[in-house]
Amino acid sequence: MGGDGLVVTERTRLRRIREQGSHRRGDLDAVLATGFLCHLGVVVDGTAMVVPTAYGVDDGQLYLHGSVASRSLVQAPGSTVCVTVTHVDGLVLARSVFEHSVNYRCAMIYGVPRLVTDPDEKLRGLRALTEQSTPGQWEYVRQPNRKELAATALLALDLDEASVKTRTGPPDDGDSEDAALGLWAGVLPVVTTFGEPVADPVLAADVLPPAHVTSRVGRPPGE
Amino acid sequence: MGGDGLVVTERTRLRRIREQGSHRRGDLDAVLATGFLCHLGVVVDGTAMVVPTAYGVDDGQLYLHGSVASRSLVQAPGSTVCVTVTHVDGLVLARSVFEHSVNYRCAMIYGVPRLVTDPDEKLRGLRALTEQSTPGQWEYVRQPNRKELAATALLALDLDEASVKTRTGPPDDGDSEDAALGLWAGVLPVVTTFGEPVADPVLAADVLPPAHVTSRVGRPPGE
Repeated sequence: MGGDGLVVTERTRLRRIREQGSHRRGDLDAVLATGFLCHLGVVVDGTAMVVPTAYGVDDGQLYLHGSVASRSLVQAPGSTVCVTVTHVDGLVLARSVFEHSVNYRCAMIYGVPRLVTDPDEKLRGLRALTEQSTPGQWEYVRQPNRKELAATALLALDLDEASVKTRTGPPDDGDSEDAALGLWAGVLPVVTTFGEPVADPVLAADVLPPAHVTSRVGRPPGE
Repeated sequence: MGGDGLVVTERTRLRRIREQGSHRRGDLDAVLATGFLCHLGVVVDGTAMVVPTAYGVDDGQLYLHGSVASRSLVQAPGSTVCVTVTHVDGLVLARSVFEHSVNYRCAMIYGVPRLVTDPDEKLRGLRALTEQSTPGQWEYVRQPNRKELAATALLALDLDEASVKTRTGPPDDGDSEDAALGLWAGVLPVVTTFGEPVADPVLAADVLPPAHVTSRVGRPPGE
């Protein structure tokens, strides 16, 4: 614990024992690198609101964006938010209902988001968002113009206060008396990959998807 | 809006126009049936905390569980929580950065969870949780004993106040002036399926996975 850079606070201190926790920056970076969607938690009218949204990472900052009309983003600057990124790796099927679990990797980041107003940082943040899900896409497509930049709300969040939790491996009851039941136990993996690209129906048939898109087919996000 | 059963409140009223929203109970049920993991948002010390956790559905109730030690579950009863279930279906790759999006299905449920104490309902809730991810597993494995039931915190949440948002289809800029750029545009599907079961290493080699597990290989959750 303590690790190389992440601040351990009361709310990121790891409490559960059965799962593995980490405050290492490298573990956080690895979880963030594997996906592009997070769940953003904001307090709205005293109640938590949890919305899925895309993210990007650049220079120790997590960037989140959305329409200016989005309630959660309008409320977020100035108050603490929680951003959670979860990858599900498998169902842990044990000999007893009680020992069932899920193999997963999860990062939780707390911070007070900053509304990005500097045009250069806004471009960098949007680039990070675009490249997070589709590396190579930023250079391939038309980049934002001034009007589009103005219509995009972009939030930046420090990656300092965070924790990572993971569960891996078989069920925990292999050495329990339930092992004598003779039941099958193990993990049913959950596999997430990209499928074959589906062209926009209005596209001319001779316009083929670029290599940075086709190269991802059959591979998981982040690879 | 209004639909067949879900209550439309200020916080579930659909605000964004570009995505499709629904307050129909059937749409909610369809999103919930396709997964087993939600993100639970709870206010802890004035800040939203977003934790991934498994869920089950039975008789109009959403059941969530976890260790009694889990902070979010201990705090949740008596205060309003937000439960969000998100399925990512594809990256929407447009001609301009600005029009990039994600195809998804998302359900958001608000309510004040109730701590389940009745042993019969606790069993029904745990059954729903187990069967949500792995149909057939409840009858196959050893069901909870009294001690295990006592050690499990189970929350029930009414499904009445909820909204569903989805985005499907190609990018929106097929009829814009960017179409003249001649770039490929379309959707890169995200496909989630179950992989080949991985046996617990301590298991005897002649113990084979049951049909309700092997039948799911190559299929997505909820099918």
